Amino acid sequence: MTSFADITGTLEGLAIEVPSWAYGNSGTRFKVFGTPGTPRSVEEKIADAAVVHRHTGLSPTVALHIPWDRVDDYAALRRYAEDQGVGLGTINSNTFQDDDYRLGSLTHVDAGVRRKAVDHHLECLEVMRATGSRDLKIWLADGTNYPGQGDLRGRQDRLADSLAEIYAHLDPEHRLVLEYKFFEPAFYHTDVPDWGTSYAQVSALGPQAVVCLDTGHHAPGTNIEFIVMQLLRLGRLGSFDFNSRFYADDDLIVGAADPFQLFRIMTEVVRGGGLAPESEVALMLDQCHNIEEKIPGQIRSVLNVQEMTARALLVDTDALVGAQESGDVLGANAVLMDAFYTDVRGDLATWRESRGLPADPVAAYAASGHREQIAAERAGGTQLSWT
Amino acid sequence: MTSFADITGTLEGLAIEVPSWAYGNSGTRFKVFGTPGTPRSVEEKIADAAVVHRHTGLSPTVALHIPWDRVDDYAALRRYAEDQGVGLGTINSNTFQDDDYRLGSLTHVDAGVRRKAVDHHLECLEVMRATGSRDLKIWLADGTNYPGQGDLRGRQDRLADSLAEIYAHLDPEHRLVLEYKFFEPAFYHTDVPDWGTSYAQVSALGPQAVVCLDTGHHAPGTNIEFIVMQLLRLGRLGSFDFNSRFYADDDLIVGAADPFQLFRIMTEVVRGGGLAPESEVALMLDQCHNIEEKIPGQIRSVLNVQEMTARALLVDTDALVGAQESGDVLGANAVLMDAFYTDVRGDLATWRESRGLPADPVAAYAASGHREQIAAERAGGTQLSWT
Amino acid sequence: MTSFADITGTLEGLAIEVPSWAYGNSGTRFKVFGTPGTPRSVEEKIADAAVVHRHTGLSPTVALHIPWDRVDDYAALRRYAEDQGVGLGTINSNTFQDDDYRLGSLTHVDAGVRRKAVDHHLECLEVMRATGSRDLKIWLADGTNYPGQGDLRGRQDRLADSLAEIYAHLDPEHRLVLEYKFFEPAFYHTDVPDWGTSYAQVSALGPQAVVCLDTGHHAPGTNIEFIVMQLLRLGRLGSFDFNSRFYADDDLIVGAADPFQLFRIMTEVVRGGGLAPESEVALMLDQCHNIEEKIPGQIRSVLNVQEMTARALLVDTDALVGAQESGDVLGANAVLMDAFYTDVRGDLATWRESRGLPADPVAAYAASGHREQIAAERAGGTQLSWT
Amino acid sequence: MTSFADITGTLEGLAIEVPSWAYGNSGTRFKVFGTPGTPRSVEEKIADAAVVHRHTGLSPTVALHIPWDRVDDYAALRRYAEDQGVGLGTINSNTFQDDDYRLGSLTHVDAGVRRKAVDHHLECLEVMRATGSRDLKIWLADGTNYPGQGDLRGRQDRLADSLAEIYAHLDPEHRLVLEYKFFEPAFYHTDVPDWGTSYAQVSALGPQAVVCLDTGHHAPGTNIEFIVMQLLRLGRLGSFDFNSRFYADDDLIVGAADPFQLFRIMTEVVRGGGLAPESEVALMLDQCHNIEEKIPGQIRSVLNVQEMTARALLVDTDALVGAQESGDVLGANAVLMDAFYTDVRGDLATWRESRGLPADPVAAYAASGHREQIAAERAGGTQLSWT
Repeated sequence: MTSFADITGTLEGLAIEVPSWAYGNSGTRFKVFGTPGTPRSVEEKIADAAVVHRHTGLSPTVALHIPWDRVDDYAALRRYAEDQGVGLGTINSNTFQDDDYRLGSLTHVDAGVRRKAVDHHLECLEVMRATGSRDLKIWLADGTNYPGQGDLRGRQDRLADSLAEIYAHLDPEHRLVLEYKFFEPAFYHTDVPDWGTSYAQVSALGPQAVVCLDTGHHAPGTNIEFIVMQLLRLGRLGSFDFNSRFYADDDLIVGAADPFQLFRIMTEVVRGGGLAPESEVALMLDQCHNIEEKIPGQIRSVLNVQEMTARALLVDTDALVGAQESGDVLGANAVLMDAFYTDVRGDLATWRESRGLPADPVAAYAASGHREQIAAERAGGTQLSWT
Repeated sequence: MTSFADITGTLEGLAIEVPSWAYGNSGTRFKVFGTPGTPRSVEEKIADAAVVHRHTGLSPTVALHIPWDRVDDYAALRRYAEDQGVGLGTINSNTFQDDDYRLGSLTHVDAGVRRKAVDHHLECLEVMRATGSRDLKIWLADGTNYPGQGDLRGRQDRLADSLAEIYAHLDPEHRLVLEYKFFEPAFYHTDVPDWGTSYAQVSALGPQAVVCLDTGHHAPGTNIEFIVMQLLRLGRLGSFDFNSRFYADDDLIVGAADPFQLFRIMTEVVRGGGLAPESEVALMLDQCHNIEEKIPGQIRSVLNVQEMTARALLVDTDALVGAQESGDVLGANAVLMDAFYTDVRGDLATWRESRGLPADPVAAYAASGHREQIAAERAGGTQLSWT
Repeated sequence: MTSFADITGTLEGLAIEVPSWAYGNSGTRFKVFGTPGTPRSVEEKIADAAVVHRHTGLSPTVALHIPWDRVDDYAALRRYAEDQGVGLGTINSNTFQDDDYRLGSLTHVDAGVRRKAVDHHLECLEVMRATGSRDLKIWLADGTNYPGQGDLRGRQDRLADSLAEIYAHLDPEHRLVLEYKFFEPAFYHTDVPDWGTSYAQVSALGPQAVVCLDTGHHAPGTNIEFIVMQLLRLGRLGSFDFNSRFYADDDLIVGAADPFQLFRIMTEVVRGGGLAPESEVALMLDQCHNIEEKIPGQIRSVLNVQEMTARALLVDTDALVGAQESGDVLGANAVLMDAFYTDVRGDLATWRESRGLPADPVAAYAASGHREQIAAERAGGTQLSWT
Repeated sequence: MTSFADITGTLEGLAIEVPSWAYGNSGTRFKVFGTPGTPRSVEEKIADAAVVHRHTGLSPTVALHIPWDRVDDYAALRRYAEDQGVGLGTINSNTFQDDDYRLGSLTHVDAGVRRKAVDHHLECLEVMRATGSRDLKIWLADGTNYPGQGDLRGRQDRLADSLAEIYAHLDPEHRLVLEYKFFEPAFYHTDVPDWGTSYAQVSALGPQAVVCLDTGHHAPGTNIEFIVMQLLRLGRLGSFDFNSRFYADDDLIVGAADPFQLFRIMTEVVRGGGLAPESEVALMLDQCHNIEEKIPGQIRSVLNVQEMTARALLVDTDALVGAQESGDVLGANAVLMDAFYTDVRGDLATWRESRGLPADPVAAYAASGHREQIAAERAGGTQLSWT
């Protein structure tokens, strides 16, 4: 049996990057609801992210999104973040909000549009050099809405060419992380719809190219932990975008829709060495808070990852392997379920306190007055959102 | 065998209402792309809808959406429409774009919000009296994003109460049409997720309440034509919102994703008497054109309904029943497929011309110069969109 | 806050009927694997079910399936069961394994086949009179594989007629319970595919007709707890068939695939009064054990229902309602999750012992030697399976 | 514009392998219905397959399944087939119907079971040498039903080892074709669930290993034609198993559920060179006829592939590329739809007659008396089925 004391070493290393855009307003195609205290600048978004880290000790870095987080002086932004107690992390490109990208970006049939999209990524690499970021994450909205609209094959070939040009500009410490998504915003096909496509594309690029697995980007019924296993086995699991969903949306707090699935995913991460000290797998959130409060929503999210990681670490591996090898179907399942059903919240609270963190970060935030403070302080100006 | 001549009588009666909002800009949560010539007023939207009707003879009425189409003088708007050659049709309410509706409208836990939402529908009834509309269509965005957020039962009971109050204000010639939607924009539950819920609610109201079936609002794999059959059998099929989808979106041109499904749906409409002269089933489009041209998109849509209706009417019913009754599985299927595979486009073109319509409405529109004309004429002002 | 002591009263009343067929062999269309000790008679199946009840105190009755469990003397079978410490419960009809039913049973186009199918149900009513059963459960395999194969409307009308004839033969204390299933074994349409159809059919019959909700019989992404709420609200939730699934199968141990879903379902059962003393909602398992051991599989299943019911009963209703009414999205969700994450296993073990039951029924069964005993005793004969 | 005369050259080369098991009885886990005239020997299955070819000219080879089609003398079987006018094609292995394979075969934790499974494939290679077959097709039922039951990673590694051993025994002209399947009969995970896994495994083996795409083996909503494009692009599309499905089953006649999808798939096959003379892509059926007649079911199936291939070949490629390159969304879609909606049945009938084939193979078979003949001739003996 594994005890809580056995797992705190690994838990100490747990870090979940938070996205700057989670602190701005977001919503559905029907409506974006605003909330008091929403940031009006990149700095305010980073300040909010730092609040999450101060309450949880779990989110030491913030991911940026270009152009949403474009500033004149990235070095200054980096110093600002460090003053707040956090670092700048992954740089996310954006090729879906410019009119030129209506029919594609890196895959576009027009060489000029592709040029523009490639250049945008080269700008992101420049940002990375200023922020000290390792990862360039590429999620493409590229795809088509109607059969025949585009030549699937030509688009895939152009994607390979565009990525190769970006890849050629990476510094040795950089990584190109290619995300896949089953659908949306494209309705008929997306150019990187599944892990197989992402894997085939990054394998063709070289060792610095890896796959990003967004937990919300799969077909109904997909066994996501299998993909985690496979990508770790193939050495191409670059990062996670955590969130959850019931249907097709992918904005809910990670673990909210199916905590057992999150547990199974973290079990495979542990199994495959993804939490080992030498692992380069990056854990991140990619979610938006449409109707719930943003900072508490992020706190809840990183705590969910921590709680399910703790449960996953508690799996009695010896007993599990023993049951598996003896063909004891119910016994093996029971070992896994025992860890899942173990209530780790008390142990985690005590351990948090021992590290100078609040036992209950959600309650501590509510009691801190921060919510009321930013609502008052950020009265004027324009609240930031996706656009 | 049924010949084309046998079906033109029914085809003549075919009318597919078009939505005013299809002519404005729309998009996904990621981006709304604008197009030259997009209407800047309700009148321009109606004018565009009239262009669709003039080219196809298929869309004699336009549905309005309140408040998107709110005007000071609805009687004047009605006259304007009639001058353009179309009528005003269904009035659609909107309880999802006001901040008060963040957590619900007709189902909201707060009596004041429910009051406001009910009153909005009473306003819609007033509009209907001015426009001469028969149908008040209610699609609710009400739902929750997280388990526990709302009391599912309490919300359902409040929905019943709110609908009853609205229903009490209907004029004798009015209908309350309650739409259902599997998900979106709510992520965890919607308050009217399926036909069963809509049916249970409208049955409790009375004979003037019926169900709207939006072809894009079902779970993956749902047999939609079965629901068409069932609602016709139960006497509660009020109207269709036509569109199509591959995944979770529901914005594509009807018939674009699965023409055979549209054929099967129209076959059940015919089977259940939905195209009979005395039928009150309303056919409507509810779709938006995100990247494709709007007016040609609407023309294509109503033509698709017409083409699949023609195929459905061509089914050799005697042969079908004969094969069904003799247990000839492949034979019965073959009768259906024979109608589906029959290319009716030539016959339809000839018949259109005989009625003074263009043989090829898409080509006729392209050649008409209308596209270039509105792009030039509507240069200034603010293009209308959903918000 | 609700404590464990507060909920034991309700837990004492918890009863989950087990299916006789779970103790026989079953499998997929590819292969049925046998196991040593599998029953060779109805009596041995009942004896195994009684073992589950003796270890758990949770399964006081056994459901029968006719003709699988057809015997000459049902009164004697009833006495046998009572001697074993269990009662006979729901009678399930079977109209899918006779060659006559290839194209349907209660819906068949041929009056002779419908007559045979109706008569089979009348035989089941006779069995119920001998066994003292209350419920006649009807799951229909009726449906079609190809569009056009059958007339959907005609089949639905014939179903109504057939059910009406069966209903007319019910004794006052009987219930007709109509199950729905999204698909399988029919590939294109099933005649009772959703709760709406089952509800419409039973409503037309009268107050003794109710709906059976099988947790594995829904489209991907369906919010099952919503249906639980709705059917309880409409007074037509007759019974549950519990099981779980990841994809399209529905044979896994209840709660195995998504324990949080089972928790949400039980929360709605509690919310809607389904566990109240006067409730007539019947809880049952309907699952088969293809590769795992059968008796331990059943023990695990009823324990899962018990554990999730305990968690559901622990929901702090006052806090939940308070958060819901104040619009605190995250707070309301947190109340629910707190109950779900509470590890009730220790309290349940202690409580079990206080009632003379083993603290750990799974371990107690493994230690009992029963498995080895039946493997030795049941060496000859023909193991029972579905066919 | 492409005319029918332009495409007959390619159509002449079209060959769709038929599976021997389609002529035996098959069904669901609920019931297998028999039909008069069902073969009682491998020879009778081949004779039936030859009847399909004689009526359609489309199915020159028959796939065998070992052990279902195990005979003492494969050379004699080959001569028998050739006498009937067909050849023996792909050899399919079977590692799912032996009790040893309950928990896996090539992935089994037990080295002895893996040895047995590998040896079975070596036996299949021997069969191939006798039959002159090129392809060894491996569909694995391997997987698990419960989380924790197996170590996903260990199973994947063992799969790689087992496949490598089989691959090492291939003759230079052989191919190893690895099929993937989203689920079934395993309920929680399958060891080769998606094209990405199959691609990663075959890539590691060498150039003689390729992927089999079964059109029924994907998650709901999967864009199958994209996978066709990608595998052709990567040079690893070995073969198709054609069939269709509405839900999770995959037994329906190819094209029956969604003819437009079949058209899109064939369009990508043409686009990617899959019908070019030098192409090694093999087209096969993998479907069973549960309630419909078997031989007519197979005739209908190969005709459906032929009809949709014809439509795909009729796509006006120049117009399509033109519209795609000019960003004309609706125009490009219209080019595709125009080919899909073109009724090629008349041209195909005429062309068939010109080649000495019946204009209407379905009607010709019905009129041939063959159905009645085999029903009479095959009165005794045991009808063959899957087991």
